[in-house]
Amino acid sequence: MLPVFGHLNPDTDAVTSALVYARLLSRQGVEAQAYRLGELNFETPFVLREAGLEAPPLLPVLAAGTEVALVDHNESAQSVPNLAELVVTRVVDHHKLGDLTTSQPPYLRFEPVGCTGTILLGLHREAGLKVEPTDARLMLSAILSDTLHFRSPTTTQADRDAVEFLAPVAGVQDVEAYALAMFAAKSDLGDTPADQLLRMDYKVFPFGDAAQPQRWGLGVIETTNPAYVFGRQAELLAAMDKAKAEDGLNGVLLSVIDILNETNRTLILSATEDKAVSEAFGVASQNQVADLGHLISRKKQIVPTLEAHFAPVS
Amino acid sequence: MLPVFGHLNPDTDAVTSALVYARLLSRQGVEAQAYRLGELNFETPFVLREAGLEAPPLLPVLAAGTEVALVDHNESAQSVPNLAELVVTRVVDHHKLGDLTTSQPPYLRFEPVGCTGTILLGLHREAGLKVEPTDARLMLSAILSDTLHFRSPTTTQADRDAVEFLAPVAGVQDVEAYALAMFAAKSDLGDTPADQLLRMDYKVFPFGDAAQPQRWGLGVIETTNPAYVFGRQAELLAAMDKAKAEDGLNGVLLSVIDILNETNRTLILSATEDKAVSEAFGVASQNQVADLGHLISRKKQIVPTLEAHFAPVS
Ligand SMILES: [Mn+2]
Ligand SMILES: [Mn+2]
Repeated sequence: MLPVFGHLNPDTDAVTSALVYARLLSRQGVEAQAYRLGELNFETPFVLREAGLEAPPLLPVLAAGTEVALVDHNESAQSVPNLAELVVTRVVDHHKLGDLTTSQPPYLRFEPVGCTGTILLGLHREAGLKVEPTDARLMLSAILSDTLHFRSPTTTQADRDAVEFLAPVAGVQDVEAYALAMFAAKSDLGDTPADQLLRMDYKVFPFGDAAQPQRWGLGVIETTNPAYVFGRQAELLAAMDKAKAEDGLNGVLLSVIDILNETNRTLILSATEDKAVSEAFGVASQNQVADLGHLISRKKQIVPTLEAHFAPVS
Repeated sequence: MLPVFGHLNPDTDAVTSALVYARLLSRQGVEAQAYRLGELNFETPFVLREAGLEAPPLLPVLAAGTEVALVDHNESAQSVPNLAELVVTRVVDHHKLGDLTTSQPPYLRFEPVGCTGTILLGLHREAGLKVEPTDARLMLSAILSDTLHFRSPTTTQADRDAVEFLAPVAGVQDVEAYALAMFAAKSDLGDTPADQLLRMDYKVFPFGDAAQPQRWGLGVIETTNPAYVFGRQAELLAAMDKAKAEDGLNGVLLSVIDILNETNRTLILSATEDKAVSEAFGVASQNQVADLGHLISRKKQIVPTLEAHFAPVS
C-alpha cells in the first residue's frame, strides 16, 4: 500500500491531489492510500463536504525504507521529517525542484502549471481513464484554490482548460459561485488561535548558500476579509515571533492576500524582515505592514525575489 | 532556440534522444536544437548513418541564464560544466535524481524504464503526434542500445512494447539482426587510443556524504569482442591511472561487458579499487580483473551497490 501525501500545513491541492493520485494509481494496479501531513485549513473541509468525502488520515510514522509518493511538493523542508530515510518512487508536482534526490530512477511528473490537479487530469487522459465526478470535483476545487480562480499569476491556459473540462463532469454549473463559496469558507476564520492562522499555509524555505545559509518561514493567509486578519495583527506578530524562535529561523513573513482585490499586505516582524523586504521588493513598511501591491503568489513572486536577494554574489 | 542535450561521453540514447526531443518540441511550437557534449562512440555513427542523419553539433559555451533541456541525464557531474549557471526548464530522463535543482517550476519527465527513447515515444503518443520513420529508428536504436537488446536488467515491458511498435514504423524487419549489426559496429574499436576507449562510456559519480566524500569514475565497454579489449589491458590500466590523477578521483573502474554472453569482467587499477570491489561485491580480483558475473548494468547494479557500500553508517 503506497502512501501518497502532500506538503506540511496542507492546502486544498495537497489534500485533494493525494486523494486523486492514490485513486488513479489504484485504478492502474498500484495499491495506494492518501494521507495528510497536518490539520486542514478552513477551505478544504468545505471542498471535502461538497464532494461527500472524509479527510484522509494523518500520516503515521513510516519505517525507514518505505516507498512513498509525493504530490504538490518535493522539498524536504515541506515534507515528512524522516523523508531522507524513505524511498520516493513517484512525485507529481508543480513547484521548483528542491533538494530531492533518489537512489533509483523514479517516476517524476512536474509541469509548470498552476496546480497539481491540472497535471493529474492529464495523467487520467494519458491513461485513457474516465474521470469520476468525485475526482473531477477535487481537481476542480484544487485548481480554483491554487489559482485563486485564475487571479494568480501562476495560472496557465492548461489550468483554464482543465476547469472548463472538469466543471460539467463534477456537476458544478456556476464555477464563479462555487469558487466564491470556497473562498468564503476559507475566510471564515472564527476564533482560530493566531498560532494556527500563521501555520495554516506556511512553508520554510532555505535561501543563500552553504556559506551564508538562511531559513525563512513564509506564511500566507488568502482571504476575502482582510480587515478581520489585520484586526488581529498584534496576536499574529506574537505568533510569528514565537515561530521564528521555535524553528530557529532567520526571518518570518506573513502575507495577507486579499483574494477579491488581488493585493498583498505583508506583516513585518522586526528590523531584519523590514531590511530584507525593503531591499528585495523596494517597499518600506508602515506600522509593521509592507504593501507588496499585486504580488499575490508566494511561489512565483515572493520566493524567487527573496531567493535572488539572498543569492551569493558570483 | 532551446538547446537540448544528453550527457558527457554521449552514448546512442544521449545523442538520439536529443535529436528526437528537439524535433518533438519543435513540432509542438517550442523551437529547439539538438547538441552533443562530446565525441560519439562507435555505435552511434552506425545508427545515424542508417537513419540518414548527421551527428548533432557540439554544444557551444552557453551564456549564464540560457534556458536548456536535458535528456538522458540530470546530475551536474555528467552535464555541461556551467550547468549551475543555466536555467534547466525541461528534463526527460530514466536515471536516479541527483543534484539538480531549479529556481522555477520545470517540466520533468522521469520514468524507471530502460531508455529515454521509451519515454519519448510516450510523449509522442500523449501529444497525438504521428511518429516519423526517422524518429522511430532513432528511438528503436536507443532502446536496443541501452537495454543491450533486452539483455540488461534495466529492461521493462514498456521498452519491449516500444520496440514492437517502433520496428515496423522504422522499417526494421529483423530487429535481432539490426541489433547485432549495431553491437558489431560498437565493438569495432580498431586502433582507438586507450584513453579514448576508457572515456567512451564513462561517468563520474559522487558517493559517501559530506564528511567522507568519494568521487569515482566508472567506465563501461560493451562489446561482442571482449578478447580484443583484454588484449589491451596494460594500456587501459595506464589510461585509468591517468584519468584518476587528472580528475582527482578516489577510484576508477572499467567494466568490460560481454554483450552476447551477458558477463562483466572489471579492470581493477590498484589496492583501493580492489578493496572497494571485494567488499562491495564479495569478489576478489585476479591479475587486476574482477569477475562480476552477470552484473552488466552500471545504473541498476554497479552504482547502487557502490552507493550502499560508501553510504555513511546511520
Ligand atoms: Mn499546489
Ligand atoms: Mn539512456
